[in-house]
Amino acid sequence: MDRVPLERKVLNENDRIAADLRARFAACGVLCLNLVSSPGAGKTSLLERTLDGIAPGLRVAVLTGDIQTDHDAARLARFHFPVRQITTGGTCHLDARMVDRALVGWPLEGLDILFVENVGNLVCPAGYDLGEEAKVVVLSVTEGEDKPLKYPGIFFRSSLMLLNKIDLLPFVPFDADEAERNARRVHPGLPALRVSTLTGAGLPDWFAWLGDRRRQVALARAASSV
Amino acid sequence: MDRVPLERKVLNENDRIAADLRARFAACGVLCLNLVSSPGAGKTSLLERTLDGIAPGLRVAVLTGDIQTDHDAARLARFHFPVRQITTGGTCHLDARMVDRALVGWPLEGLDILFVENVGNLVCPAGYDLGEEAKVVVLSVTEGEDKPLKYPGIFFRSSLMLLNKIDLLPFVPFDADEAERNARRVHPGLPALRVSTLTGAGLPDWFAWLGDRRRQVALARAASSV
Repeated sequence: MDRVPLERKVLNENDRIAADLRARFAACGVLCLNLVSSPGAGKTSLLERTLDGIAPGLRVAVLTGDIQTDHDAARLARFHFPVRQITTGGTCHLDARMVDRALVGWPLEGLDILFVENVGNLVCPAGYDLGEEAKVVVLSVTEGEDKPLKYPGIFFRSSLMLLNKIDLLPFVPFDADEAERNARRVHPGLPALRVSTLTGAGLPDWFAWLGDRRRQVALARAASSV
Repeated sequence: MDRVPLERKVLNENDRIAADLRARFAACGVLCLNLVSSPGAGKTSLLERTLDGIAPGLRVAVLTGDIQTDHDAARLARFHFPVRQITTGGTCHLDARMVDRALVGWPLEGLDILFVENVGNLVCPAGYDLGEEAKVVVLSVTEGEDKPLKYPGIFFRSSLMLLNKIDLLPFVPFDADEAERNARRVHPGLPALRVSTLTGAGLPDWFAWLGDRRRQVALARAASSV
């Protein structure tokens, strides 16, 4: 247990930077969302769909994290929104300092929504505040309905669960109702949306949720400046 | 970078325990395999199929790791092989000490194969030697063929890649040949088997691989006792 005091120090430093980021996002009226999932659950596909379908006039940017490669930034760049890759070089999660550094030179004032796509990992990202307004956990129906119980940290800390790849429901042994019940045993009342980033099913609900959260952030900013 | 010296110390301690475990496995002629994958890629299903179909007379045991819950041990116990759950309580990987402790009281002499099912995480388990003979990485076809490039550590350190859920290939945008090419860009010559733990497709190849590795371990033990 030698590591505990040092880990606490590292986390305190992270929390301090995250608090600074949160204050900057709030001051600029930017909705920052931290997307977390297993590898391959569909975070990048969700972002592709989101950038492709977002309401005209909304100003969106993406920070996308990976251990290696800049494939995701390349996939997302074709939508002509600002995208930056954070390559962690082996680290299994994003931390607030990485986000802070990646934002250097980006005018947050000009943004409505900032998506932060975390490293594909259901465990470690749960422990690192990035200054986001909300975490969104993506669970794909191929992963099994027990995952909220086995990885409770991220489901407890998320404000929304997206159940992705529902187009595959006819072909996999997966009980979507049970998955939502399991998520709510960990996090009572957790909202859940069922989507397919392949077919587009359910995405209007995701856009509606985004719009609501975006308006809340804008209202809070207006109220604070009265 | 405060953490580096302490992490090195923790890893050195892990390597020391892992080396002890490896020596014990070798002395007893036990083939120890460390199964690693994303959450929900099918490690537990693979073990269910394996315990169900293993050649009569082979003596097999399982250590199954999870952050929370003992669901996997419960799923595996019905095959009447010895199964023990390691619940890490938040830690994102198994380490050698956890395996060492879980083996207390288990007579390794009576075993042919010990499966260690790691925590569902493609990142952190790659860094921890458990004294295994080989790591086996399970990648499911729903996760995308780019994953070996994005999570190279575990593909580099594994002795076999199992491409699971091939029954879903008609329904997902996944190029299995490209996935194998990507894995071999990280790890030239890495053997790969295509399987479905749902339908049983490809499992005879897995059993053949297991049999070969098991015979190699038994031969090495016999040779060392000449």
